Formats: sequence, C-alpha cells, structure tokens
Amino acid sequence: MNVVRKHVRRMHPYVPGEQPKERGLVKLNTNENPYPPSPKVLAAVKQSVDQRLRLYPDPKANKLRAQLASLHGVEPENVIVGNGSDELLALAARAFVEPGRDCVQYFTPSYSLYRVLADIHNAKRNEVSLLDDFAMPTVAQLRKGKNWDFKAALTYVTTPNAPSGRGYTTAELDAFCSAHRGVVLLDEAYVDFAHEHAMGLVVKHPHVLVSRTFSKAYSLCFQRIGYFVGSVELIAGLDKIRDSYNVNGLGQIAAQATLRELPFYRSNFGKIIRFREDVAAQLAKLGFQTLPSQTNFILTKAPRFKACTWLKKLRERKILVRWFKDPRVEDFLRITIGNEKEMQTLFRAVKAILRG
Amino acid sequence: MNVVRKHVRRMHPYVPGEQPKERGLVKLNTNENPYPPSPKVLAAVKQSVDQRLRLYPDPKANKLRAQLASLHGVEPENVIVGNGSDELLALAARAFVEPGRDCVQYFTPSYSLYRVLADIHNAKRNEVSLLDDFAMPTVAQLRKGKNWDFKAALTYVTTPNAPSGRGYTTAELDAFCSAHRGVVLLDEAYVDFAHEHAMGLVVKHPHVLVSRTFSKAYSLCFQRIGYFVGSVELIAGLDKIRDSYNVNGLGQIAAQATLRELPFYRSNFGKIIRFREDVAAQLAKLGFQTLPSQTNFILTKAPRFKACTWLKKLRERKILVRWFKDPRVEDFLRITIGNEKEMQTLFRAVKAILRG
Repeated sequence: MNVVRKHVRRMHPYVPGEQPKERGLVKLNTNENPYPPSPKVLAAVKQSVDQRLRLYPDPKANKLRAQLASLHGVEPENVIVGNGSDELLALAARAFVEPGRDCVQYFTPSYSLYRVLADIHNAKRNEVSLLDDFAMPTVAQLRKGKNWDFKAALTYVTTPNAPSGRGYTTAELDAFCSAHRGVVLLDEAYVDFAHEHAMGLVVKHPHVLVSRTFSKAYSLCFQRIGYFVGSVELIAGLDKIRDSYNVNGLGQIAAQATLRELPFYRSNFGKIIRFREDVAAQLAKLGFQTLPSQTNFILTKAPRFKACTWLKKLRERKILVRWFKDPRVEDFLRITIGNEKEMQTLFRAVKAILRG
Repeated sequence: MNVVRKHVRRMHPYVPGEQPKERGLVKLNTNENPYPPSPKVLAAVKQSVDQRLRLYPDPKANKLRAQLASLHGVEPENVIVGNGSDELLALAARAFVEPGRDCVQYFTPSYSLYRVLADIHNAKRNEVSLLDDFAMPTVAQLRKGKNWDFKAALTYVTTPNAPSGRGYTTAELDAFCSAHRGVVLLDEAYVDFAHEHAMGLVVKHPHVLVSRTFSKAYSLCFQRIGYFVGSVELIAGLDKIRDSYNVNGLGQIAAQATLRELPFYRSNFGKIIRFREDVAAQLAKLGFQTLPSQTNFILTKAPRFKACTWLKKLRERKILVRWFKDPRVEDFLRITIGNEKEMQTLFRAVKAILRG
C-alpha cells in the first residue's frame, strides 16, 4: 500500500537539535536564550490561564499584529503571525513556489530546514555556497558564478547567518534584493544580536519578506510565535492559505506582553553580546578559533580532537552543543551563549578534556 | 508582480466563525464547550508558566503521545499530535494527495474546510451530496450514483456530521472504509457527544485515520491540540513533513493534564447531551424543527423568518449563532449547546423575536 506520496517516502526529514528529557544537562545546542522571559510576561500568561481556554483564540492575532505593525512602522496588513517562524517559512514555499516547476534557493551553509522545506514541497532546489569566510557573494560574483538563479520563485537568506554567526550589512542585502525577481525571504531569527537589521527593505522592495521570531531573543520557544513583515500582496497570499487558528492563545498573550517589555529584553541582548565576546576570548586562550558572531551562538574550531569527538566528549560531561555533518562546517562546533554558570561549566569541561 | 501562485490568487479562503472582540455576547457559533477546563488542568498549566518558556517544547510530544496511545490501546507510533486537528487535516492533503493528479473527496454538507484544503493544495475535488436526511449513502448507493471515487487519494468524513449533527454507526463506517483504496480520514471532532466512535477501525484498516481534537469536548480551543490515530505507515508519512515544533509546550501540558481528568470531562459530556435534548424540546414548543444531533450543537429550522434573518435578529440581541450559505442547509441555523444561562438568554430572545 503506497498511499504516501512518492517524494515524501524518499525525502529525508529535518532533524531538530536534541531536546533532552534528562535534567541537569547544560543545553547549548539549540540557541535558546539563557534568560527567562520578563516576570511581567510570565504574570500576563498566568493571569490568562482561566475559563477562556475553552474559547478559540483570535484567528488573525489582531492585537499582536497591531503591536508589531506599530513597532516596525508598517500597517497590520503587512504582518502575518505564525506558529513559530518555521510554520511561515514552510507556508512561503506553498504560497510562492510551483512544485515541479519553480525553484527554492538558498546559500550553504545556512538554516538546514530550507532544504527540507523544498523537498517537502517537491520543488527544485538551488544551493549555492557562501564564500570561504561565510560572507555572501556579491551580485557580481553570483552573476559570474552562473549557478545563482535571480528569478528563483523563493530565495531564503539567513541573516545573520546560522550556523556561522556572520552578519550581513543592510547595504549588501539591499543590493542583493534589488537583483532578484522572485520572493526574497530575509530570515532574521538572530537579528537582535546583530549590528544591523534589514526591516526597512520590506518597504523598499515589494518582493521582500523579513522573518522574525520570539523564540531566540524573546525567550519564548515554548510558545511558538514567529512573524513575517512584507508587502500587502505577499502577506495576503500567505494569509489565504494558513491554518485559520494557527497561533495559540497563550502564545499571543505572551508575545503581546513581551512587546510591552522591550527594554528588559534589550538589556539581555546587551549582556549576551558582551558575554559572547568574552566567551570567544576565553576559548581562544584554550586554543579554540572562533568566528566573529552577530548572533547568540558561536561557531568555533576546537583544538586537538575532531569536532564530532568534542561533541561526544562534551555530551559525556552533560553538555550539549551542536555539530553539523556538512563539509563546510564539520570541523566546527556551534555553541549557544548560555548564562555565566553554564559557560563556566563548559570551560571547566573543556579544560578537563584537554588535560585528557 | 505575480509572485503568488495562480491557484492561491484565485481560490476562496476558509472563513472561520466570528470570534468577537465585544464582551457580553452569547457565543453559540463555533461549538466551543460551555464548561471551562478542569481546575486541575488550569493548575497544571499555571504551574508550568515559568523559566521553561525559554526552551523548545518536546518536538515529538512524546509524553502526550504515550498517554494517547495508552488511552486508545495503540502504540505511540500510531499517534501524531498537531496544532489543532486543522493542521493535521491540511497535512494529510500534503502527505497523500498529488496536486494536479489526485483527488480530495468528501460529502456535502460537511466541514467546510475540506474544500479549502483541496484548493490550497491545488488538488482535484470530488464533492458528493449526503442523502436528504444527512445520512451517508451506502456503498451500494455510491456505486450506483457513479460520482463517488473509491480510489480517491484522500476522503474526509465528518462523523458525527457537521453541520447537521447526524451520527453514523461504526458498522456503516466500517463498510464504507472497506470499499476504499485511498486514505479515509474519519474526522471525529464531535464524537464525545455521540453514541459510538470508530477508533477501532484504524486497527482493522491500515488506510484509515481517525482525527480527534481537544478543542470541543475538552475545552481547549485556545491551546490548539488535535491528533490523528492510524497505521505506522500513514503516521510516519505525516510526521516526516510536519513542522518540527508544531505543538506549543503549554498546549502539550494542558492536554496531558486533561487525560488525567477524563471522569470530569465525561460528566460534562453527559450534561451537554441531556441539555441538548432539552433545548430541542424547548425550541420545538416555539415552532423550531430540530434535527437529531450526536454533537454539541443542533441544526434547526426556525419558524416565521428566513434563517439568515434570524441570524441578524439574534446578532442584534448579542447572540451569535452560525448560518451557512449552502443550498443544503441555508434554511437552518446551527446553534451550539451553551450553558443553562446562555440557552435561557437564547429562548428569551427567540420569544421576543417571535412576538415581533
């Protein structure tokens, strides 16, 4: 009985980072924020846990969209909210890409989900390598290389890049977007830890979407809230095909409360950014080569052992980091910037491993 | 700039029932449960609103799946949890239906989302009418009618039916499933208010899925939790293409706590079922003709005015009910069974409207 579609049977699914059941692990593998949500956010959610749970949430997340529109200086019609930005990234393929004909395009390495989204949708894929230092090729370089498709129906760009942590300037993203005909999706999951953001480009370019999430910077992974900002045409196309009650009610409330507490979170971003530089410096003393990062994680080359060996040795000491079996980054570990205690535990483990 | 796919631009989206912002409305339009969740469920959710919100939820909802498997006498591999059953209904089209080639099939009237799911997926649609009393045609009748496709890639069946409230026996569903080659999805959103359920058919038929939700019977619309039970092959196909963190963490916790409180909910089902019969009897005295229901709502023909006029007149009195612009049911109102106070308000309004 082959009732499952052929391409689904053949494809490889996305593998998320380990979400361990064991307690007492130091979790530096999925770029969660080390700081809890603001106490006011927790209070707002707690106060909403009452008889209203029996009712459907607002299917359009209107209050949240209004707050987001005001934050970004756009209209609510320029905003769509999703069950995490992952839902919206998948929705974009379904809204803009004709399976079997159109192409989903992205740089490698970047968010490893894009390949899977193309495969799920049975779309053509076009993968082009970033430069050696994970810089984005310029438009001239892409034209010269001839592998890039400036008319691709959908191009995903992780900016700042994951897993490298490299940031891109708004100027270079602007030039990049200008050269494209299809939809360009700037996935700014980590942008709160970067020097610049590119939200302004959605006003300039009607074919550009910016993706944001409350997961990483706003400590709300558990609640699943992400959003896109873009032209009314793109947002309306996505809105037409989303699940009607796609955003859970307590998640909407948590995100709304978060937007009233931005100074709290901005102070956390500052702490994480400063600590990121400190962590890189400490690791350098131990022989690690860390790439410059504009995110809440670092990509680092560890001394003495292979990266996959480090992964295992750290796991044995109850520390989870991430390693990707991808030729471009297989010599690196990706380590989330945790809190001070977690990073001290990491340093102690690293020293112990190096002592043998 | 036509970057949105042509079929998306052309299709009509799903229109959910009104979720009003105004307070003080009597909401009998989207089949929510009139009773709040168990106090123990609310307590379990409240106690979980803490620093864990910064972490990703279990991507596989393993604890919840284990509980559901145990409840239904299957293995966790036979269960997939979704962001409401709506997410899974859409996922089924993407897993089993080849757009442009395969067919999505359903009876009319039934859950009006199915048409939209077929359109979103750019699949062929096959709609066949239920019998005059909303009974399901027998296999012999379907064969004779020649319009039914027993090899349709995906057939959705709302059982008990919405919007009529009519229930179907497991025996007739069994015979129906046996006659099909493609996937048959028994959408049991309202089954807790019915005489029988058909969960046993998933063990007998590897091409049958049963859909359930925590929204209606378990008072958790706000939290978005639904699930499918079926063969390992079907569930694995769906699991491969779902968003990896599709079920929010507090929703998982609420559903887990709900499953520890089933006697509380079963007592509510009993109250709603008894009250449903009472409501029909009261409305009969006022000249309404109500169809037999095995759900938490009734489909009823109102006297004197057209159904769409009743909709407006009740709305003016702050009572929301549902009306469908569909030739099969346009003479009816669909009314959710609310609590005693809400239904008394409805009766008073109906009497006032009839007095003119």
